Amino acid sequence: MQSVSFYRDKFEEYLSSSIGDREPRSLYEPMFYILKLGGKRLRPVLTILSADLFGGETKDAFKAAMAIEYFHNFSLIHDDIMDAAPLRRGKITVHKKWDINTGILSGDAMLIEAYRFLETYPPEVFKELTVLFNKTAIEVCEGQQYDIDFETREEVSVSEYLKMIRYKTAVLVGGAMKMGAITAGASEAEQDKIYNFGLYLGIAFQLQDDYLDVFGDPKTFGKQTGGDIIENKKTYLYLKALEQGDANQARELKDLFSIQPRNTEKKIRRVMEIYDQSGASEETKQAIAHYTNKAFEFLNQLDISQENKEVLLSFGRDLMGRKV
Amino acid sequence: MQSVSFYRDKFEEYLSSSIGDREPRSLYEPMFYILKLGGKRLRPVLTILSADLFGGETKDAFKAAMAIEYFHNFSLIHDDIMDAAPLRRGKITVHKKWDINTGILSGDAMLIEAYRFLETYPPEVFKELTVLFNKTAIEVCEGQQYDIDFETREEVSVSEYLKMIRYKTAVLVGGAMKMGAITAGASEAEQDKIYNFGLYLGIAFQLQDDYLDVFGDPKTFGKQTGGDIIENKKTYLYLKALEQGDANQARELKDLFSIQPRNTEKKIRRVMEIYDQSGASEETKQAIAHYTNKAFEFLNQLDISQENKEVLLSFGRDLMGRKV
Repeated sequence: MQSVSFYRDKFEEYLSSSIGDREPRSLYEPMFYILKLGGKRLRPVLTILSADLFGGETKDAFKAAMAIEYFHNFSLIHDDIMDAAPLRRGKITVHKKWDINTGILSGDAMLIEAYRFLETYPPEVFKELTVLFNKTAIEVCEGQQYDIDFETREEVSVSEYLKMIRYKTAVLVGGAMKMGAITAGASEAEQDKIYNFGLYLGIAFQLQDDYLDVFGDPKTFGKQTGGDIIENKKTYLYLKALEQGDANQARELKDLFSIQPRNTEKKIRRVMEIYDQSGASEETKQAIAHYTNKAFEFLNQLDISQENKEVLLSFGRDLMGRKV
Repeated sequence: MQSVSFYRDKFEEYLSSSIGDREPRSLYEPMFYILKLGGKRLRPVLTILSADLFGGETKDAFKAAMAIEYFHNFSLIHDDIMDAAPLRRGKITVHKKWDINTGILSGDAMLIEAYRFLETYPPEVFKELTVLFNKTAIEVCEGQQYDIDFETREEVSVSEYLKMIRYKTAVLVGGAMKMGAITAGASEAEQDKIYNFGLYLGIAFQLQDDYLDVFGDPKTFGKQTGGDIIENKKTYLYLKALEQGDANQARELKDLFSIQPRNTEKKIRRVMEIYDQSGASEETKQAIAHYTNKAFEFLNQLDISQENKEVLLSFGRDLMGRKV
């Protein structure tokens, strides 16, 4: 086994070599543009790491890793259009640099290109990978749709929210790892365990994101806190506070989430108090721990060497410690 | 072998039975909406017809036919957004009935669902079908991009235009038929012949569309003529006239295509004259005949019964006679 940064460098090299001139340029340039914006390459790295974990040749996992990275970037292009986002990774988004139509069509082509990376695998493996890819892809779309629906829906339950983040974010982490396991020829039982490891770690990570957006240290979290409160976002904290809080707390929270004051500080401070007093903060911390532990339980059940388990465990800890 | 209308009815029945409630409804309703708008179902019918032609069980071809129909409708949803089209088949378009974001995401999900229909095939067939589907899908995107590029490009050659319609329209007809042949277990040689039959018939049909848009009888063509001229569309007729016409004709045609007069009749009449005088009308008719004959040559080479050849031949003639 190697370090995460080793896999990342190898993947980055592989990705770069695949980028070049291709006609029609107006279709492919936006694709290469977003790929070159960088990012942590977390998902494809997990595919390669997972293949290595199960004794596969890492070079056999690169195409699957590319499929995952292309899919992820396709979804970023289209999500950025839907969110009317001007920036992605500090750079101008595809649909702003070009236009919405370019974003739509380049995104479509990127999704199809993602599928094409799997063509190098033999039929049995190809089918296993593609079926998993299909399932993951449609779930990500469903998750995105739930996320959009929730914005305008009055009532959203905590379990609906969990389903949303599971689909929108976590299945792609699980899917990325399972694809690596498939390329390595791991048994179905092992494939499922690594999938669940990724899935639950993905859920924990996303819940932690909600938590840190309110209570995090901007220095380690990497962005200013309070953003979700300013945007009136229905996060895990918010939904838990409504569920656990008393009638007064719920009413006040709903009121606070119906306004957009110019001075946001007072609102943020009051929302934080309600999150604490209602027990939502504590519940969220417990949920993060719960899903992280669930991930580690699956890790523990894996039929791999103790040494390899340690690699995965330390990756999980680094991720949750925001060090990856 | 059965008639085209027989296959169409069977497919329509199959398609209807696949439509139902599915969550999240905001994602799936637009999908079912466009599917229910109808249309001729030409492509999926050709998949089933082609399977029957090669002695396959038609029921084995239905899933491949669904993949083709879903793909086609995905491309319609996204194309309609890009063209800002208010109507599709006389009904309001998806992005107008809902909104652009819904059109983007439902289209994405529809593309992924298209892939999922192939999952019922055994690995070897699955891979053959998916690889062909991938190739066809990316070519359709490239064709759409060329079409967009040509709108704003000053110079477009006739051969570039042919490549564009081949990718944007014809490969999906060829691909639909080849997928039917694959499900029937036809040899590669036969697969390629039926692909080329569909491909060249698709090109001929598209060129005929350009021709009929100017010189067709609105009663049999099904829409008002002159639309392409009003919209200054660079069609085969236009590009041929620039290529074949003398300097004066070319200059006048370019001038006419740089204006959008309120009274369109005079412009249409003058453009028609230039198309005739430059030889473009004649050249276009010859090109239609050329590609139709090319399709029929491939048909003739097929290793199927004379009776089945007749079915395909009469389908081709009906299509080019605008009777299908």
